[in-house]
Amino acid sequence: MSPKITTELLKQLRQVMKNPRYVQEPVQAYIVPSGDAHQSEYIAPCDCRRAFISGFDGSAGTAIVTEQHAAMWTDGRYFLQAAHQMDSNWTLMKMGLKDTPTQEDWLVSVLPEGSKVGVDPFIIPADQWKRMSKVLRSAGHDLVPVKGNLIDTIWTDCPQRPCKPLITLDLSYTGLSWRDKIVALRSKMAERKVMWFVVTALDEVAWLFNLRGSDVEYNPVFFAYAIIGVNTIRLFIDGDRMMDPAVREHLQLDSALEPEFKIQVMPYGSILSELQAVGASLSPKEKVWLSDKASYALTEAIPKAYRYLTPYTPICIAKAVKNAAETEGMRRAHIKDAVALCELFNWLEKEVPKGTVTEIVAADKAEEFRSQQKDFVELSFATISSTGPNGAIIHYKPVPETNRTLSVNEIYLLDSGAQYKDGTTDVTRTMHFGTPSAYEKECFTYVLKGHIAVSAAIFPNGTKGHLLDSFARSALWDCGLDYLHGTGHGVGSFLNVHEGPCGISYKTFADEPLEAGMIVSDEPGYYEDGSFGIRIENVVLVIPAETKYNFKNRGSLTFEPLTLVPIQTKMIDVNLLTEKECNWVNEYHQKCREVVGAELERQGRHEALRWLLRETEPLARVQ
Amino acid sequence: MSPKITTELLKQLRQVMKNPRYVQEPVQAYIVPSGDAHQSEYIAPCDCRRAFISGFDGSAGTAIVTEQHAAMWTDGRYFLQAAHQMDSNWTLMKMGLKDTPTQEDWLVSVLPEGSKVGVDPFIIPADQWKRMSKVLRSAGHDLVPVKGNLIDTIWTDCPQRPCKPLITLDLSYTGLSWRDKIVALRSKMAERKVMWFVVTALDEVAWLFNLRGSDVEYNPVFFAYAIIGVNTIRLFIDGDRMMDPAVREHLQLDSALEPEFKIQVMPYGSILSELQAVGASLSPKEKVWLSDKASYALTEAIPKAYRYLTPYTPICIAKAVKNAAETEGMRRAHIKDAVALCELFNWLEKEVPKGTVTEIVAADKAEEFRSQQKDFVELSFATISSTGPNGAIIHYKPVPETNRTLSVNEIYLLDSGAQYKDGTTDVTRTMHFGTPSAYEKECFTYVLKGHIAVSAAIFPNGTKGHLLDSFARSALWDCGLDYLHGTGHGVGSFLNVHEGPCGISYKTFADEPLEAGMIVSDEPGYYEDGSFGIRIENVVLVIPAETKYNFKNRGSLTFEPLTLVPIQTKMIDVNLLTEKECNWVNEYHQKCREVVGAELERQGRHEALRWLLRETEPLARVQ
Repeated sequence: MSPKITTELLKQLRQVMKNPRYVQEPVQAYIVPSGDAHQSEYIAPCDCRRAFISGFDGSAGTAIVTEQHAAMWTDGRYFLQAAHQMDSNWTLMKMGLKDTPTQEDWLVSVLPEGSKVGVDPFIIPADQWKRMSKVLRSAGHDLVPVKGNLIDTIWTDCPQRPCKPLITLDLSYTGLSWRDKIVALRSKMAERKVMWFVVTALDEVAWLFNLRGSDVEYNPVFFAYAIIGVNTIRLFIDGDRMMDPAVREHLQLDSALEPEFKIQVMPYGSILSELQAVGASLSPKEKVWLSDKASYALTEAIPKAYRYLTPYTPICIAKAVKNAAETEGMRRAHIKDAVALCELFNWLEKEVPKGTVTEIVAADKAEEFRSQQKDFVELSFATISSTGPNGAIIHYKPVPETNRTLSVNEIYLLDSGAQYKDGTTDVTRTMHFGTPSAYEKECFTYVLKGHIAVSAAIFPNGTKGHLLDSFARSALWDCGLDYLHGTGHGVGSFLNVHEGPCGISYKTFADEPLEAGMIVSDEPGYYEDGSFGIRIENVVLVIPAETKYNFKNRGSLTFEPLTLVPIQTKMIDVNLLTEKECNWVNEYHQKCREVVGAELERQGRHEALRWLLRETEPLARVQ
Repeated sequence: MSPKITTELLKQLRQVMKNPRYVQEPVQAYIVPSGDAHQSEYIAPCDCRRAFISGFDGSAGTAIVTEQHAAMWTDGRYFLQAAHQMDSNWTLMKMGLKDTPTQEDWLVSVLPEGSKVGVDPFIIPADQWKRMSKVLRSAGHDLVPVKGNLIDTIWTDCPQRPCKPLITLDLSYTGLSWRDKIVALRSKMAERKVMWFVVTALDEVAWLFNLRGSDVEYNPVFFAYAIIGVNTIRLFIDGDRMMDPAVREHLQLDSALEPEFKIQVMPYGSILSELQAVGASLSPKEKVWLSDKASYALTEAIPKAYRYLTPYTPICIAKAVKNAAETEGMRRAHIKDAVALCELFNWLEKEVPKGTVTEIVAADKAEEFRSQQKDFVELSFATISSTGPNGAIIHYKPVPETNRTLSVNEIYLLDSGAQYKDGTTDVTRTMHFGTPSAYEKECFTYVLKGHIAVSAAIFPNGTKGHLLDSFARSALWDCGLDYLHGTGHGVGSFLNVHEGPCGISYKTFADEPLEAGMIVSDEPGYYEDGSFGIRIENVVLVIPAETKYNFKNRGSLTFEPLTLVPIQTKMIDVNLLTEKECNWVNEYHQKCREVVGAELERQGRHEALRWLLRETEPLARVQ
């Protein structure tokens, strides 16, 4: 992968930064965050402004361009990828390392006195605006909202905003009607004494109305906002997709409904003016609830005294705790996903020695097997199919320039997942199709020990996920190893593969306590730059745990793996496992045999079934 | 212990809350935090206002009195104690439990519209003021500074503020002269471009000037503030203690010094007016550095635009990383402390069966043995000497009403420590002088496993202490047990037994990463209300660790126990230990034998030496 040449683009951007047609006053710096107007992690092509200006297309990163400098902040997952994709106009700012300045501190250090720093107010979250603006102001600079995105002015072939048809989900998938969700939301609003709730995150709109879309690749969401009042529902959405009879029926748009459930459909672009009108009409004590990550533009539409901001919205929290219908759907999706991967790994075992399977071929084959499964919709993220040194690029995606052929001499790492109508999957397996070295097995086994330590952990009700992160690292730390990413993220139910408000990470964020019904990933790893990458990832469901003593009746929790794909025993140094860990692997594999084996049988996939049985032979520990 | 009857006092307080002699406008609520004007944890009798008004004298807690209610917030260490000490006028707010409201939320729920909430601006930290004031204001109330403490107006026999002589510490104890500390501080000030630094914490003043005092019991500090300018040093301190020739010599008050090291001594009470004068004299861009925990009164003395606030001051961070002289001093202090405890436990083993040793007698005996050691100054906190059910009161202090006799049928928990001129100690041992039950041994062994998991942990440079907290709980969690306090706190070097900026706790606070040279405690526990308490505490030094692979040359850290007191093997269920844990205990005991044994020998304490040898026999694990 060769870097994007950005000299000319940066020159153009620096010109519009001074051009009165686009800016009221010249700005000495322009911030290009990676999100869209909904602060989405995955974005539509028309919103990939940071990738356009820099070449770096990882899922997280912020670019800042000044008259003299261009700098990119990203985290450990993307250090190598960003270094490969950006030309020498760009400085890489490695977040999480001790000496890396924050964006604000860096701006203060490079800007001339009294500078203006511009940003698109629809793209920057309000909490980030506040933090940056405070630091900049105290150093004598100003953060200013620039109407109309400056990247769009130089992006002549910018693609159109997508506007694809919608999918309606019935109760068998969602477990709860959109009306019941609105009722629950209004009761949360009443508890906090707020009159209005603004839904800005795309997955929250989709979840609330039991609708799905395909405006953003991998994420079954659609561009929309909603404003929920105590008696009104406004849905801001474009295109003729509201003409679809199935959608009209689902939303009861043509029924004689109680007025408080009548949905007013309005143009997507009218959210700001509508919200400003709401803001202008408020009586004292009437509050409007927004996420503190909502855009600065929408947040500013409500006068400060009327805002009620929280890090997590009630929809975000309700969405995270899956009900019985959703949990069952997730189970079904993971069984189908395991069938596809058994097929894939059986196929790879036969084909890799021939030397004809590249990373891209393997990724395509994985998609092919998945697409044969019932209710398959699309992948849930770009498949990370990486062999040898490419495995050390944590969020690698194979492209023709980097595409490596799988061989019996290198470790192969596959991190992939799919959207099924009944659930979202995300699984990583690390395989060797020849004979792994003792060192590779040693590292793999430490990662496995970490994976098991989290998966088998028992912890009290009310524990936050970040308190479990070190369990995943302990075996690696003992040998002086580590990995530079978090251990787990929330997973949506036929929704975004990354969702809040829970997770397992050393980064202290305001995560909500884990609750039974939440679903997270457990994915420790180890990466050796230039040689290999190892990661073992299951999606796990938080479930109640029985303990010997139930301290103060607090109750305990643990995890149940939803992912049921064999963990390659060839890669395990059994002597490094404790008896308990060894039993965990054997019980896990026994469950894979029973559950996935039955489904392979049912689907008549006998060769893959034989592969599964071979791969799940119990480990024997030498005493 | 019978509760303090507070009906009359609360009536008086509610009167002064409306009395125009004391308040500009009536206040509907009055907050009584537990700190003093330096936000100290341990406070002088004259500052024990919260204990005076409520009866609850634990080290942490905040009282709020409204016209109708009186409520006390405290944490898990003190739930039982507070419940015992307060009468029915008071509602106990158990912090850390899910349904307990914050002080702000509670105020909003009970106050009539448009209320004023008063607080002494010298006692409330600026960060807390900001947080409370924001919530109150958004609910239509006002937080107002009340000049002159309202408790003091009703506290007719309030003791005088202490003003005891000072101790000077030479280089052999401190490793660094106060001049060199000032130079280092000014260089940190230059880095951040600040012109003034205000020292408000008592231990920071003491550390900076290499002075100690005894104004606050257990903490070798003295009432003082300092303002360090780029060319000036002002020390605010009362009494004739500055007339002491040793102090004058130490501070070179009478020498012809370079002007930037000349200390101007000023009255303690003049800090506010002096700081206001500094605030009024600032030119644009001249910043004043304060802790964000400094009092609201002092913080307000500096106009907002000129403030530079950080959670930890450069003194706090420098003080936490002990130099070679301090580390050696801490080692010496811990050896002497172990000698005293070997004597004590040997004595208890003989005396407890006679039925004449009470908790108070045992605590006094511990102090007696400690006081025989060289450079002993005082205890480092009130000895927690507790047997049977008293052990479950986490920060119990025996008083005549609760004083229980030690017996061969109950667990005895001793958490104690001392100030020596060369170091501060803090150690907890849990002993049984008869035959512990299987359940007691089981719980003790889980606590021990947690203690070892932290003590033997290897972790990368840059790891924050809170990431290690779950290691201490994992064995307890597996059986559904837990303890409601943090696992460790920073320990000063002949200074406060609790100090920042590092610690090991599930509570996420902005702790600084652990560094080699930092000293913390490792003290997991288990408490069964009404029956027993278990805690095993060592003070441990952060040291570099050698690992097999040194990931990205980051380096690793681990802990070396400074405390060298036997852990009672009678309480251990060896079959619950892993081989590694068993070896840890045996190696620890071997070190106790070698190091403390040699000192017992040197001091001619042969009986205690024999006790040590008996207690440190290696454990044998049945395979």
